Amino acid sequence: MSKISPLQKARSEYSPKLPPVLQECGPFATARLGEPTQSVADQDAIRRLFPDTYGMPAVTFACGESFDCEPIKAGVILSGGQAPGGHNVIAGLFDGLKGLNPDSQLFGFLGGPSGLIDDKYIMITEELVDSYRNTGGFDMICSGRTKLEKTEQFAQVATNCKKHGITAIIVIGGDDSNTNACTLAQYMLTEKTGIRVIGCPKTIDGDLKNEWIEVSFGFDTATKVYAELIGNIMRDANSARKYWHFIKLMGRSASHIALECALQTHPNACIVSEEVAAKKMSLQEIVTDLTKLVVKRADAKMNFGVVLIPEGLIEFIPEMNVLIAELNDLLAKEEAAFNAQADMSAKIDFVAQRLSAAAAGAFKSLPAMIKAQLLGDRDPHGNVQVSKIETEKLLIVMIEEQLAIINAGREKAVKFSSQAHFFGYEGRCAAPSNFDADYCYSLGYTAAALLGAGKTGYMASVRNVYAPASEWAAGGIPLTMMMNIERRHGKDVPVIRKALVELDGKPFKTFATNRDAWGAGVEYVYPGPIQYFGPTEVCDRVTETLALEHA
Amino acid sequence: MSKISPLQKARSEYSPKLPPVLQECGPFATARLGEPTQSVADQDAIRRLFPDTYGMPAVTFACGESFDCEPIKAGVILSGGQAPGGHNVIAGLFDGLKGLNPDSQLFGFLGGPSGLIDDKYIMITEELVDSYRNTGGFDMICSGRTKLEKTEQFAQVATNCKKHGITAIIVIGGDDSNTNACTLAQYMLTEKTGIRVIGCPKTIDGDLKNEWIEVSFGFDTATKVYAELIGNIMRDANSARKYWHFIKLMGRSASHIALECALQTHPNACIVSEEVAAKKMSLQEIVTDLTKLVVKRADAKMNFGVVLIPEGLIEFIPEMNVLIAELNDLLAKEEAAFNAQADMSAKIDFVAQRLSAAAAGAFKSLPAMIKAQLLGDRDPHGNVQVSKIETEKLLIVMIEEQLAIINAGREKAVKFSSQAHFFGYEGRCAAPSNFDADYCYSLGYTAAALLGAGKTGYMASVRNVYAPASEWAAGGIPLTMMMNIERRHGKDVPVIRKALVELDGKPFKTFATNRDAWGAGVEYVYPGPIQYFGPTEVCDRVTETLALEHA
Repeated sequence: MSKISPLQKARSEYSPKLPPVLQECGPFATARLGEPTQSVADQDAIRRLFPDTYGMPAVTFACGESFDCEPIKAGVILSGGQAPGGHNVIAGLFDGLKGLNPDSQLFGFLGGPSGLIDDKYIMITEELVDSYRNTGGFDMICSGRTKLEKTEQFAQVATNCKKHGITAIIVIGGDDSNTNACTLAQYMLTEKTGIRVIGCPKTIDGDLKNEWIEVSFGFDTATKVYAELIGNIMRDANSARKYWHFIKLMGRSASHIALECALQTHPNACIVSEEVAAKKMSLQEIVTDLTKLVVKRADAKMNFGVVLIPEGLIEFIPEMNVLIAELNDLLAKEEAAFNAQADMSAKIDFVAQRLSAAAAGAFKSLPAMIKAQLLGDRDPHGNVQVSKIETEKLLIVMIEEQLAIINAGREKAVKFSSQAHFFGYEGRCAAPSNFDADYCYSLGYTAAALLGAGKTGYMASVRNVYAPASEWAAGGIPLTMMMNIERRHGKDVPVIRKALVELDGKPFKTFATNRDAWGAGVEYVYPGPIQYFGPTEVCDRVTETLALEHA
Repeated sequence: MSKISPLQKARSEYSPKLPPVLQECGPFATARLGEPTQSVADQDAIRRLFPDTYGMPAVTFACGESFDCEPIKAGVILSGGQAPGGHNVIAGLFDGLKGLNPDSQLFGFLGGPSGLIDDKYIMITEELVDSYRNTGGFDMICSGRTKLEKTEQFAQVATNCKKHGITAIIVIGGDDSNTNACTLAQYMLTEKTGIRVIGCPKTIDGDLKNEWIEVSFGFDTATKVYAELIGNIMRDANSARKYWHFIKLMGRSASHIALECALQTHPNACIVSEEVAAKKMSLQEIVTDLTKLVVKRADAKMNFGVVLIPEGLIEFIPEMNVLIAELNDLLAKEEAAFNAQADMSAKIDFVAQRLSAAAAGAFKSLPAMIKAQLLGDRDPHGNVQVSKIETEKLLIVMIEEQLAIINAGREKAVKFSSQAHFFGYEGRCAAPSNFDADYCYSLGYTAAALLGAGKTGYMASVRNVYAPASEWAAGGIPLTMMMNIERRHGKDVPVIRKALVELDGKPFKTFATNRDAWGAGVEYVYPGPIQYFGPTEVCDRVTETLALEHA
């Protein structure tokens, strides 16, 4: 173990809070069963696919008789992108399993699903867990993005588990990983392997969310880190009074992070992808709105501002979606001819001549830098890499172009100096806030309690989390309950429905009510860094999203 | 006043600590005079330029008799870039002046030196100060970069001050601003205006430092914010194990910030500009060293790492300095012909043909992207904008080029995926750490005490700051003491000598001793966010630089 920081040392002594039922009864809580459940849509199809786990009741834990529990050998994986608090899920799971029976064992499969398939693991010991309590990152057992979805993979997992005597698998992941956990649970039942599967809801993006999963872990910490930085930049913008800062924030498939950060900090503008899609806005319209704001503030002697941009914006703009789809087709069909073009400018011409009128129009509207990014390095399937597009710079360049036209007709030119930022890696592995430390530990502990209660095909659910931990509830919901059928890569498949920002939900409506005032003035709020030891209103406050959704 | 965050609210109640002498006697401390002082070099020239302030003794405060003090009307400016804690300097100054006499008044001149020249100001009231205590940013009165150095400007300042009855000016700034404060102090004596001038040492870059000024304010907070982010990224690098992160850090004229962050976090590499200059390293040599490290770690199955880069690196590489100087000359002389070139690629050819062999070699070694950045937007004087060069991306592209050659000769290609970051604005306006909150408040209070003691031409000095505040000392040193003669823009001028990283100093030597181990392994330290309320070893720790320099 190398040197640890004073803060990490102090935090290692923090005891995460548990829901009172688990505090009182440990992992021996009694599962109270609710009514049979249904999937959120496509009930018949989902029932057919998951005959043994469909319709199971939701579980709420209550204190009851303690019981004897045989030692459980369980395996855990971290799946997908890093999120603050993953180590605490493992710690809660470990403590819960040991609470059920001191001879229980926890295998940590390495590098995500591939560790489970390839049987690469470490034994998770008390000493190991202790050295990772309340830390950020996934480095204890690392994560991976291998998709665990094929029958051969499931069979291999079953073989590996049998070899070790493992009878339970805990998947800590997002919507895709838990979709696969659901299929794996059904497989293990169909094959009568006796191996059970429990999921835990992880994603900083905040898009794995529903009535039972009020928030996925990591969202609280990541948004607080980003909001700290945004606040610091706002203070700088308001002190220097000469820069517009364009800040792109992690979150490709939903804008929860950008919206939450906006609610915490009150920027001059925040683009919400879901609104762009709903209003079918073009890129030009977005740019025009921002340019108007720049001019309006300049007229009020405020040549500065802060704009938040969700990472996934491009894919929510209908015309850009058409363009990207056509580009992917075109580059696949005419790859050789495209590659034979002498240079980037020839490539751009080549493509522009072959696109449909609509797509060509969208392509033509883009600055040269972005055209080059679209046609540059493509992914292994030959597709455009949307994630490599520097949306924050795209908007800056297009605003500059619009301003050049506007300034030609103005006596006093509008000044526009800009700075671009992208915050992602800064927050994914931050040490968990008190909230995430407590919530993650509780999720892991709840997963152990679900195993103690003999469940499979469930996701650990800790509810009432906008209230203090002394009012939290614990239980589980069937993974099938969150599923519907969606078309992916040309096939209808069962997946957990993603929670996008709801335009009639309170968080967005609060933003929409305030955004004109925030745009025109300087109503910045400076949240500052995450605090662990101070007054509770500072250290234990929940996200604005959670507060607004449940107030 | 718009909404403030819960943390800002809690912090507004924090009472900064003062050195015991000021705690005990308030601003009525007695000035103990030391021996006459000398400038750090060029004593005769400095003495001639500053006949009335040269050689003044250093001042140390001690408790003595209280005395009556007439009300003082003082004006304060913030000068240059933002640094955490500026508002607390003003708060300490305000409280000190009111302590000397409740009828004292403080004028806050707006937007830096230009506010003093143009007589734009606000009255600083108790209520205003209270709303800014322990906050980041300079937004209370804002800052500016106008150089206050011409006699006409000084005369205008004197006129403005006389109009208001102001008899003291406090300049909160870095080495340049305090150089000008020194000249202004001499002017006011020469002209017998009765106006006194006191400086306070500000700069996050850490390059205003000497025996009496152990650290300039803002360095502590800014480096802690950057170290938080670097630590988070390290945790991510070690969890995902697939990216090399290249992190550029603010600090153009010295590498103190990068070095301090390296000492706090233990990255795989940290470039120190001063070492590059001392060893006369070429860009290729720097890239070769980094490429070797990438290969070495890949061979040990670690396709990830974290590299810190000081913002000013390019200007410390001798060959790049030659190139930039030649480019500036060439573009000035042949501007029309250069501008007439059809496109960037023609411009690059045009330039390459006209450079000296040495400069052409350096130019040729650069990736196209960087050549374009060098020849793109230039500053109002037509010079290359070195600050716009994306050094972090330059290094990435050049490493990729070297790796392509190496991989051609290897059976198993070295994987190299990278992410580039630049941290500057994220830290400049952060709310001050406990250290900076205390230090800044003490500096402002000390400035008031220096005025109470009738001093001019001094910089407030708070010493022993690596120890707890209960052991701090307060006093002042003559601004002339820090000066020497340097050549700037072709003229010999008196300036405060910049403190660069000393290669035989303990901070650098500690880094140099450890860097091979940090490079080869994973010895990352995760400092986490600044804490205000927790255990003292977490909340009150000083920077590694300060600890090493004074241990």
